[in-house]
Amino acid sequence: MPSVPKFTHLDAQGHAQMVDVSDKAVTVREARAEAIVRMLPSTLERLIAGDMPKGDVFAVARIAGICAAKRTHDLIPLCHALALSTVEVELAACANDAVRIRTRCKLNGRTGVEMEALTAASVAALTLYDMCKAVDRGMCIEHIRLIEKSGGASGHFLADDTDVAATLRPTT
Amino acid sequence: MPSVPKFTHLDAQGHAQMVDVSDKAVTVREARAEAIVRMLPSTLERLIAGDMPKGDVFAVARIAGICAAKRTHDLIPLCHALALSTVEVELAACANDAVRIRTRCKLNGRTGVEMEALTAASVAALTLYDMCKAVDRGMCIEHIRLIEKSGGASGHFLADDTDVAATLRPTT
Amino acid sequence: MPSVPKFTHLDAQGHAQMVDVSDKAVTVREARAEAIVRMLPSTLERLIAGDMPKGDVFAVARIAGICAAKRTHDLIPLCHALALSTVEVELAACANDAVRIRTRCKLNGRTGVEMEALTAASVAALTLYDMCKAVDRGMCIEHIRLIEKSGGASGHFLADDTDVAATLRPTT
Amino acid sequence: MPSVPKFTHLDAQGHAQMVDVSDKAVTVREARAEAIVRMLPSTLERLIAGDMPKGDVFAVARIAGICAAKRTHDLIPLCHALALSTVEVELAACANDAVRIRTRCKLNGRTGVEMEALTAASVAALTLYDMCKAVDRGMCIEHIRLIEKSGGASGHFLADDTDVAATLRPTT
Amino acid sequence: MPSVPKFTHLDAQGHAQMVDVSDKAVTVREARAEAIVRMLPSTLERLIAGDMPKGDVFAVARIAGICAAKRTHDLIPLCHALALSTVEVELAACANDAVRIRTRCKLNGRTGVEMEALTAASVAALTLYDMCKAVDRGMCIEHIRLIEKSGGASGHFLADDTDVAATLRPTT
Amino acid sequence: MPSVPKFTHLDAQGHAQMVDVSDKAVTVREARAEAIVRMLPSTLERLIAGDMPKGDVFAVARIAGICAAKRTHDLIPLCHALALSTVEVELAACANDAVRIRTRCKLNGRTGVEMEALTAASVAALTLYDMCKAVDRGMCIEHIRLIEKSGGASGHFLADDTDVAATLRPTT
Repeated sequence: MPSVPKFTHLDAQGHAQMVDVSDKAVTVREARAEAIVRMLPSTLERLIAGDMPKGDVFAVARIAGICAAKRTHDLIPLCHALALSTVEVELAACANDAVRIRTRCKLNGRTGVEMEALTAASVAALTLYDMCKAVDRGMCIEHIRLIEKSGGASGHFLADDTDVAATLRPTT
Repeated sequence: MPSVPKFTHLDAQGHAQMVDVSDKAVTVREARAEAIVRMLPSTLERLIAGDMPKGDVFAVARIAGICAAKRTHDLIPLCHALALSTVEVELAACANDAVRIRTRCKLNGRTGVEMEALTAASVAALTLYDMCKAVDRGMCIEHIRLIEKSGGASGHFLADDTDVAATLRPTT
Repeated sequence: MPSVPKFTHLDAQGHAQMVDVSDKAVTVREARAEAIVRMLPSTLERLIAGDMPKGDVFAVARIAGICAAKRTHDLIPLCHALALSTVEVELAACANDAVRIRTRCKLNGRTGVEMEALTAASVAALTLYDMCKAVDRGMCIEHIRLIEKSGGASGHFLADDTDVAATLRPTT
Repeated sequence: MPSVPKFTHLDAQGHAQMVDVSDKAVTVREARAEAIVRMLPSTLERLIAGDMPKGDVFAVARIAGICAAKRTHDLIPLCHALALSTVEVELAACANDAVRIRTRCKLNGRTGVEMEALTAASVAALTLYDMCKAVDRGMCIEHIRLIEKSGGASGHFLADDTDVAATLRPTT
Repeated sequence: MPSVPKFTHLDAQGHAQMVDVSDKAVTVREARAEAIVRMLPSTLERLIAGDMPKGDVFAVARIAGICAAKRTHDLIPLCHALALSTVEVELAACANDAVRIRTRCKLNGRTGVEMEALTAASVAALTLYDMCKAVDRGMCIEHIRLIEKSGGASGHFLADDTDVAATLRPTT
Repeated sequence: MPSVPKFTHLDAQGHAQMVDVSDKAVTVREARAEAIVRMLPSTLERLIAGDMPKGDVFAVARIAGICAAKRTHDLIPLCHALALSTVEVELAACANDAVRIRTRCKLNGRTGVEMEALTAASVAALTLYDMCKAVDRGMCIEHIRLIEKSGGASGHFLADDTDVAATLRPTT
């Protein structure tokens, strides 16, 4: 009978704890995550094809995401400090009313980097929101989730529906 | 004819900029935001009614959200540093497969605090995700959005569908 | 009958919360705190009269204390971010086996600064400890406490025994 | 004749310096530290047995201690940045007028982690103080000290009187 | 006879101190600063007219400068924490071998913001250097200085030679 | 024909990216950098020989430089978080109107540390500027540059003119 997985961040008393990773192997670990920023079609139109270069908007969100990944352990109390070997953040228009953010983090180390990838996606999304909020107050950040994870003892993970975002109508 | 709102975070060349708030009035400003963490019903069940006290899990997420609100300007490049007068973060089980996070930030100052409320909600959600990810890898953070905003020149904002989360149904 | 004071950092459910200071008056608020670092007489002797200038040791501890005061809200989850108008940290040898650290913080603002003064004293003490630990492993940091507090609705506070440290005797 | 230990954080001119650890071996290093928060018996009584759940108070202090351990190098100027493999912070009532905080830090690395354990204890103590100060202004943080240290060239260290706190009367 | 200005950051014993600004008036204060990054003409050519869009390079440096301004008090030990009302960072090619960075910071507050403007310029310059160092190892950051300062008791300051950078010639 | 070096921090679309260092070898890497703070001869005279001990001024700048090196990845968006094995910052009077700052950083790791050395030099210079600005408003920070770099695949680098600063007239 398979054992039920445990809440590893809680001890026997239910107290929060950092997982002890000192016995884990140093391996290459990688994670990819995603977030969607839903907005008015008119906002997206102005952002990508409109009256201004979109360059800086996407660049600022990308940089904010990269910087946030490096600070994940400072934001999420039980995360370990890590020396990430790389962080990537990409933004793309998606259908006619959304921007999709995809991130990838990589580490030679003892613990997985999914929280780093998710944090990068979240903060890039918040930064995009910040820059567009003056023209669109009803935006919503959706579907922050893990896409893929590899390395480490728990094996490979690939989300079932990785093409959900891809099947949103492309901008034509 | 009403004027079209501008992307206030971009100058005439499309370069990122902080909005100059030096001429804005010091008023009481408040914002409320929300995030939903979708999980397996079995995860929620163990979290709230199961084999452990949920106290620490929710307490850790709450504290992480409060701390994140205070660091918003350090995460979102074009946000101003603020001296928030309070931050509240509440978590509650919602339907049989979600935890809803609601935040409120308040300031006596020159700029709105919606990014602070949204950042608190996002980081509380990420922290909850972190603590549950060992038992549930398919969680998803959804509907990070502004619920209400008051104070300042732009007037009162209340989201249309503030009860969406309350009426969420399990994914069957 | 006087009312019993409340744990202001807990709401009715016992959940941690930041106190809402938006209705408090902006006044000049000040706090002084203290810490004692107990060490071997031989360590103190080398530190102050011995084979090296003590300048840098005390300067480093002083700077660390000042910097920590400015980051109090980043360390203590329910503290408000403040714009301190000044921070002072002084170190002095005390009896033949201790260094006394005294701090003072000042603010024009809505909330007291005792946590800032206490944090400055604690981190200055830890920094002194760090620099001496290679020669003295049994050091102990003692008596971190508030000495005086003024400004704000709760009135003036002065510790009863502010001369305790001055009269400390060596552990024989 | 044994050599006298040196102040490793000062160079020949008495200038502050970080110790160069590049030639030290990567080993498992561990440290345990302690702090005591002395308070009125009535405060402790309300905290642990009284009119509110103590859960959040101890949880907040625990989280603050864990987060502070991860930031030690940002607070103590001459400490190295480390990738701690775990941090533990436990709080317990002790006699009828104190809370004892015990911490443990662990690292696979080139330098000891006693400052991390001490910083975790100090900041957990300050956080507890912050949450109780509205009901008890005369609290004092005492006995911040190293309990045990292992790993590294300097050998095992165990404080003489590790049971001092233990012999404080337990809460019954 | 005019009095000689004092080192305001040192007390009577020569100890570092933060200036106490609690009695200073809240006024609008502004500062502008500058830095020059000198590079090979071939580097500049590739950067601005060459085989890639320069957008991201300048955007990243701009964002890094803005973020650094907000963290000045965390970097410069005796600087006060401030709530800047705006930060601007602009980069422009200058002669055939340099990029000039100009910054402007503004505050409604009790202390000048020249350190914030200088820190923004320095960190933007370092960030530009970082992105170009793989193609040009001999770059040099020059002329970090204050251009203009207004507001506060010390009056208006304008550097004598504000057009120096504009008239810079290539190193032949 | 030698290949032209690439802007490694930009991808094929010109988007900012962190270099992926996961395949680089762990080696001892070292970098030395320099900055010059130019000031009035009268300022330098007061600083080093005058009416106050210079100890704290240089100590504060040294500590600020060391702390900044440890935070480089938090300031420069595309820099990796590193666990530096040491940081050194030295200040010396130079000719009759300048202070020269020299820094050295060292790492056992996968990426070079020149940005850490340059950041330490820059922030030490800014800190010195901050402490002297009340007596000398026309100071200028000059010649922030790499002096030497070793370790890693790109080989040894030594600046051509490392004696520029040395040939500035020494203080007699």
